[in-house]
Amino acid sequence: MSYNHARMLVHHSYGENFQAAMTNIISSATSACRRIFSIAFALSLMCHLPIFAQTQTANPYSAQLLDELKRIQQAALKSDYAYRQTAYLSNNIGPRLSGSAGAGASVEYVAREMRRLGLEVQLERLSVPHWVRGEEQGALVEYPGQSNNLTQKIILTALGGSVATAPAGLTAEVVVVKSFDELQALGRGRVAGKIVLFNRSFDQRLADAGYSGEAYGEAVAYRGVGASAAARLGATAAIVRSVVGANYRLPHTGAMRYAADAPRIPAAAVTAEDADLIAHLAAQGRVRMRLLLTPQTLPDAVSYNVIADLKGSQQPDEIVIVSGHLDSWDLGTGALDDAAGVAMAMATAELFKHLSLRPRRTLRVIAWMNEENGLVGGRTYAQNQAGNILNHYAAIESDRGAGHALGFDIKGKPELLPLLQPVANILQSQGAGVLRLVDDTEADISPLAAQGVPAFGLLQDSRTYFNYHHTAADTLDKVKPEELAENVAVMAVLAYALANLPQPLPR
Amino acid sequence: MSYNHARMLVHHSYGENFQAAMTNIISSATSACRRIFSIAFALSLMCHLPIFAQTQTANPYSAQLLDELKRIQQAALKSDYAYRQTAYLSNNIGPRLSGSAGAGASVEYVAREMRRLGLEVQLERLSVPHWVRGEEQGALVEYPGQSNNLTQKIILTALGGSVATAPAGLTAEVVVVKSFDELQALGRGRVAGKIVLFNRSFDQRLADAGYSGEAYGEAVAYRGVGASAAARLGATAAIVRSVVGANYRLPHTGAMRYAADAPRIPAAAVTAEDADLIAHLAAQGRVRMRLLLTPQTLPDAVSYNVIADLKGSQQPDEIVIVSGHLDSWDLGTGALDDAAGVAMAMATAELFKHLSLRPRRTLRVIAWMNEENGLVGGRTYAQNQAGNILNHYAAIESDRGAGHALGFDIKGKPELLPLLQPVANILQSQGAGVLRLVDDTEADISPLAAQGVPAFGLLQDSRTYFNYHHTAADTLDKVKPEELAENVAVMAVLAYALANLPQPLPR
Repeated sequence: MSYNHARMLVHHSYGENFQAAMTNIISSATSACRRIFSIAFALSLMCHLPIFAQTQTANPYSAQLLDELKRIQQAALKSDYAYRQTAYLSNNIGPRLSGSAGAGASVEYVAREMRRLGLEVQLERLSVPHWVRGEEQGALVEYPGQSNNLTQKIILTALGGSVATAPAGLTAEVVVVKSFDELQALGRGRVAGKIVLFNRSFDQRLADAGYSGEAYGEAVAYRGVGASAAARLGATAAIVRSVVGANYRLPHTGAMRYAADAPRIPAAAVTAEDADLIAHLAAQGRVRMRLLLTPQTLPDAVSYNVIADLKGSQQPDEIVIVSGHLDSWDLGTGALDDAAGVAMAMATAELFKHLSLRPRRTLRVIAWMNEENGLVGGRTYAQNQAGNILNHYAAIESDRGAGHALGFDIKGKPELLPLLQPVANILQSQGAGVLRLVDDTEADISPLAAQGVPAFGLLQDSRTYFNYHHTAADTLDKVKPEELAENVAVMAVLAYALANLPQPLPR
Repeated sequence: MSYNHARMLVHHSYGENFQAAMTNIISSATSACRRIFSIAFALSLMCHLPIFAQTQTANPYSAQLLDELKRIQQAALKSDYAYRQTAYLSNNIGPRLSGSAGAGASVEYVAREMRRLGLEVQLERLSVPHWVRGEEQGALVEYPGQSNNLTQKIILTALGGSVATAPAGLTAEVVVVKSFDELQALGRGRVAGKIVLFNRSFDQRLADAGYSGEAYGEAVAYRGVGASAAARLGATAAIVRSVVGANYRLPHTGAMRYAADAPRIPAAAVTAEDADLIAHLAAQGRVRMRLLLTPQTLPDAVSYNVIADLKGSQQPDEIVIVSGHLDSWDLGTGALDDAAGVAMAMATAELFKHLSLRPRRTLRVIAWMNEENGLVGGRTYAQNQAGNILNHYAAIESDRGAGHALGFDIKGKPELLPLLQPVANILQSQGAGVLRLVDDTEADISPLAAQGVPAFGLLQDSRTYFNYHHTAADTLDKVKPEELAENVAVMAVLAYALANLPQPLPR
């Protein structure tokens, strides 16, 4: 999961879409409480919203359809297929940043596996950014109390898209700010020639209370455009405090974007601990830091969205997309972000095949490329399908990890809520009955949503998601097989319902 | 905190001393429960053990002494002196591995600060190991499902004392074992020429339940002597799963020791995630790994124990030691291990000065050098003081972090328990009233204990200690000022009582 650059700039308040999606996730300190809240919420929806049966003349959920949905749910909860896919993508392939060999291998793997299941596979050609991390070193070379030229190591990682320092690195005084306002207040006189540290903390209390998306959105703006804000005042480099709830000295990478009106200066994330260290010493006196970053932006690379169709039995031209994104950041193996999402989509097709359930509409599995640093996959698909957009009945994506499944959210017409309440009711039997109307949806399907396609994002317990997201610790052990299976159940039940409802969706 | 090599080998069951010390820490999932257990335990002691007043004719705790102890406790709980010392050692000095510039700077700092307080300072000259970490790289270069020569990065760190690989590194197949028994069962035929991964998990359930020392002791044996066990069967290198409860892809260093009867092969710790990755792939087929380590063992370096005396008013030749160790591992800044312990000892002296309380016996602050990889400081002191050992009335050390203070343990005669119960009673007002008899004590004071000096170790809530210990994440933010102050209260109240009791201690 990431915020792509263009949307960052358009929205101007960075991360709005995910914030909005996450704002109302029902969650609390214990599983028991969470369950109670979920049920209470589901009941409140049933009480306050018009129930489908009251507003429609014919019930679109036949007894057979309801039975099939329950069979899919039960089979999903017992299957380890998605976990095996997540494991393969994470462990046998590894990191999958756009343009990398791992990304290429993952395209081949998903295509091969979907063909093996009997789906019709196309590769949608893309031209994706190809940014490659290099060396990265930081050290405090002058600070209060320094003894005998002792230097202090600073653990950091280049932000995706950053330019390099000079080959020998750069050395400059560090100025610490907590906000853009503080930066502006310092002015060019106190910023020019310096390294700016944006020391904005992730609000873990917000995340613990279930609002991890809000906590992320608040902090991530500095990662996205901090470098240009600092560069406009003459800064020589920008470093941001990693956007993280847990403190294990892990730097968090992620996309940044240079504004057209500012010099391009190197940008890195330091760990929360290193941000604390620098701030602690800078409060005592002058701190100078050496920074070496050698990333490269290579020419754009050829890559692909993997598109695999299980043709519908009655309206094969109408498409229900299930999806996740195949690319990941390079530090970890992208198990949570977003091998798990791709695996849920693959598993949805596998379940239908396994249960010999062929939906009326076409189920289209998409493994998106380049969500993290460009969104080329999602955009290109929407452009290529512009003439066929009305045949896109619905699009589903999971891109918030693989924690305990809570339900799904909807970007679309309010009438979708009562229409899909029977799906939520089935999912509530596993505690995943939340459904919510939101303002924005997952990044890859947002260009479709912008053209009116009803879009659905999976809701997970994401309280710890940002502890691992975009770090070296986004690895397979963070995915719990039983929780992943819960999410497959949500995606598959929702997709099957959408692929079989008799009427058009309101859009 | 570490296990020094010699003691590892003598005890043959590695980590016994700390295990024993930690075995009975009263702890549970919530602070409230812990408090209840602590009180219950303190009451049970009072009920089942002979109370001092019943077995002695005169009460050694005068009203004045009890009043002074309470004043010390209250002042300790309000003071930030220890936190400021911990911050200086961690942030203004940084890592302090024996022989390093940081270790040297820390000796100078503590000596200067103790002189500033008016203590008599001596530096006790030592000749310490000087091991320096170099480059460290790991990569899987062959594994099942490998695509297009894609390699997988393995995050690892050299174990302290390891030899280097060849300058170009070594590449070999990895064989995974969970125990020494599994290694032996494989035999030379399946081990020779390979890299052995000891994939023994840290038992976090044990740690969560309060037995972190036991969990550590069980896993750390592989770090200590795994390399030699593998080398005896012809292995080319040994890697161990990091001894850790939290999974944030952090490698944990620590001391290892080569046996005299085995070739010296390179030894490193991989993160828990990387151990999982290797084991996952090795279960599918052949895994080959490239390993590059370039540490160096330089000639022994000159360093020092810092010894600072606050002379006693009546029996100045009799000594009560308060201590922690000044050296740390090199990856983090050693805030928990053990700047905090040194700071508690410094703060004990500062409190007595601040309150104008001069004890009958001499309070001796010792900042030990080389606990982590040699124990030269503790051993040398005990040797140098062999003729003066009877004047060592008692020795106290803190080396289990700076978590919520629970009380202290005693290596010495059982009669010490009732004698010190009044101290525990005072500390129980802050929830730190546990006192326990144990078989072994903290490493630096263990050579004194072996000569009969009553030895006292501080008991902390150490459930998360091993998440950070010996990693890059052992940093200042892990020390909570209020919890550190609790520990200062324990050390200072205990030290003042010991420095003022009228009679000799049983020994």
